[in-house]
Amino acid sequence: MPVYLDHNATAPVRPEAVRAMTDALNHVGNASSVHRFGRDARRRVEDARETVAALIGVQPGDLVFTSGGTEANNTALRGHGRTRTLVSAGEHEAVLQARPDAETVPLRSDGTVDLDALDVALAADDRPALVSVMLANNETGAINPVQQVVEIARRHGARVHCDAVQAPGKIAVDARALGVDLITVSSHKLGGPQGAGALAVLDGQSVAPLLAGGGQERKQRAGTENVPAIAGFGAAAEAALADLVRMTECAAWRDRLEAEARALCPRLQVHGAGAARLPNTSCLGLPGVRAETQVMALDLAGVAVSSGSACSSGKVHASHVLRAMGVSEDDADSAVRVSLGWTSTADDIDVFLDAWGKLVRRHGLAADAA
Amino acid sequence: MPVYLDHNATAPVRPEAVRAMTDALNHVGNASSVHRFGRDARRRVEDARETVAALIGVQPGDLVFTSGGTEANNTALRGHGRTRTLVSAGEHEAVLQARPDAETVPLRSDGTVDLDALDVALAADDRPALVSVMLANNETGAINPVQQVVEIARRHGARVHCDAVQAPGKIAVDARALGVDLITVSSHKLGGPQGAGALAVLDGQSVAPLLAGGGQERKQRAGTENVPAIAGFGAAAEAALADLVRMTECAAWRDRLEAEARALCPRLQVHGAGAARLPNTSCLGLPGVRAETQVMALDLAGVAVSSGSACSSGKVHASHVLRAMGVSEDDADSAVRVSLGWTSTADDIDVFLDAWGKLVRRHGLAADAA
Repeated sequence: MPVYLDHNATAPVRPEAVRAMTDALNHVGNASSVHRFGRDARRRVEDARETVAALIGVQPGDLVFTSGGTEANNTALRGHGRTRTLVSAGEHEAVLQARPDAETVPLRSDGTVDLDALDVALAADDRPALVSVMLANNETGAINPVQQVVEIARRHGARVHCDAVQAPGKIAVDARALGVDLITVSSHKLGGPQGAGALAVLDGQSVAPLLAGGGQERKQRAGTENVPAIAGFGAAAEAALADLVRMTECAAWRDRLEAEARALCPRLQVHGAGAARLPNTSCLGLPGVRAETQVMALDLAGVAVSSGSACSSGKVHASHVLRAMGVSEDDADSAVRVSLGWTSTADDIDVFLDAWGKLVRRHGLAADAA
Repeated sequence: MPVYLDHNATAPVRPEAVRAMTDALNHVGNASSVHRFGRDARRRVEDARETVAALIGVQPGDLVFTSGGTEANNTALRGHGRTRTLVSAGEHEAVLQARPDAETVPLRSDGTVDLDALDVALAADDRPALVSVMLANNETGAINPVQQVVEIARRHGARVHCDAVQAPGKIAVDARALGVDLITVSSHKLGGPQGAGALAVLDGQSVAPLLAGGGQERKQRAGTENVPAIAGFGAAAEAALADLVRMTECAAWRDRLEAEARALCPRLQVHGAGAARLPNTSCLGLPGVRAETQVMALDLAGVAVSSGSACSSGKVHASHVLRAMGVSEDDADSAVRVSLGWTSTADDIDVFLDAWGKLVRRHGLAADAA
């Protein structure tokens, strides 16, 4: 049985979500139709709105359902209506590419945003700004000090968007406690289906719609609601919240994985280890062995991990996240991401370590090879 | 058992699509991941690309999968790169709202685009233009003479986008025979799941992406591929194409429905009846009875139809399509859409006629009440 350790790319769909989707798929209905079929579809969407809102600490009415994290991030970054846009250098491409005109705030070497640099950048120009800083990085798991980002932003009259795609289901997320104005979540990163995400727009604010057409989602997102995926998202959100306690165990497995890997190969790098991190993510550098080589060798051994983000469609390039942390291009090129999740077991760690140990030995990098 | 006659809003999901989706939901994978799980997901996407391409007569490589028809239309209308945009007055809101700066080409009273007016508009201004004309109207079923639209456009050096959302599975669609440059299709109108659509970009042309981020879909649509929905779309496309022969029967039922309805109420209007129409669609006007009243009365009787398009989210407004055909506001306000599809039976027509007959009699509009 192959072992799946790539939850940050996409998580296996939880059985609760499959059931909710299957049920929705067997009940026809456009959520905007007024007849009984439409009302049934509407109820599924509104039920999901409640559980997704509860997952991240917002009001159901704050949520705008989208086709996923990319669309939600694009909507936030393009529709915020502020004059300046500042983004951290570690943001996902769905933030960076949405606003090529954005100013970049550097990262610290631990993978978190440089708060002093943010303060300086905001102080230098008093036009209305939006700051976009992710809650947790997809490659390193590093958790940004979003509350402090908000404090700094508020002092300068700036608003804050937070791409929280990687966080819910792995750590507790409370958008109100964070104080952000806009927050992005995605279904398929937490065990819901692909094809659903949401942008929460807090405090009665609004964003300009990215998709224009019908008046769905309080005129903030046109297009027929994806009822089955939204229903699956809702069911997965509820299950992920209930499952959060299991993440302590997950962190222990991740820590054991890193400790035993380092024992196998003392030259191992763990990028982002200096920061508070997601409990499930490990970004492992094996200097001298290209990430692609590692990913392919592990795949042959039945272990699925990734090199950087999965979104580059086969294009080989050094991670912009690691480069922004000051990691050399060679070292960035030799980093793989291991990400656990709700299906992971202690056995998965053993299978990984066995396959990884063979890889390390084959390249003459094992401790006992010295 | 309630009767569903609102296929143009959304069609019941075909069992082939439910099976393909369920199978995809039970196999984790991000289609951009290089490991075995990713390759399995990629295979599902590429298999679907072939069947959807076959459905509309394009090459698999022409297709850009999107979250649905609205996103595909928005992408085409905003990303075409031409200076002028011309749209027919009968287009869906996802076309009209995508380009509020577009010039409008009027409809004829039968619901089809006015070709002479298009010719005049294109001749009046020789800047590079894109013309967007739908294949079949969602409210009336009227089929536009798209080949002639293309001929006229070509004479003026214009390109053509065709919103074909309502056509595949109801009539044969061959994008190459039509000669269009861009064509939009949607999964959930033909028995696939909600949350998937495609824009075909023919002849090696390209569009500027609407969603920015990762390099998915040949850099024309960022965001993790919605593998289950795309797989369901592919299975539904194959089934819809095989089922097309049944549409002759469907047209006969629709014609009987209109004939018997007219016998019940001679004042009945059938909007768009003068044009070639989709075999499944009937836009029935019952002068003096508001569409909302009809929809609700029929819903109580267990028959689901709609007033105009389902996308207006409860907002009551006269159909812009009927108004553009020269129908008075009062008459437009009293039109309901009956749309059949792959689940329809001859019995459904009887149930509709029974419920509709009671409604007509209650309002004193029956032939025998005169």
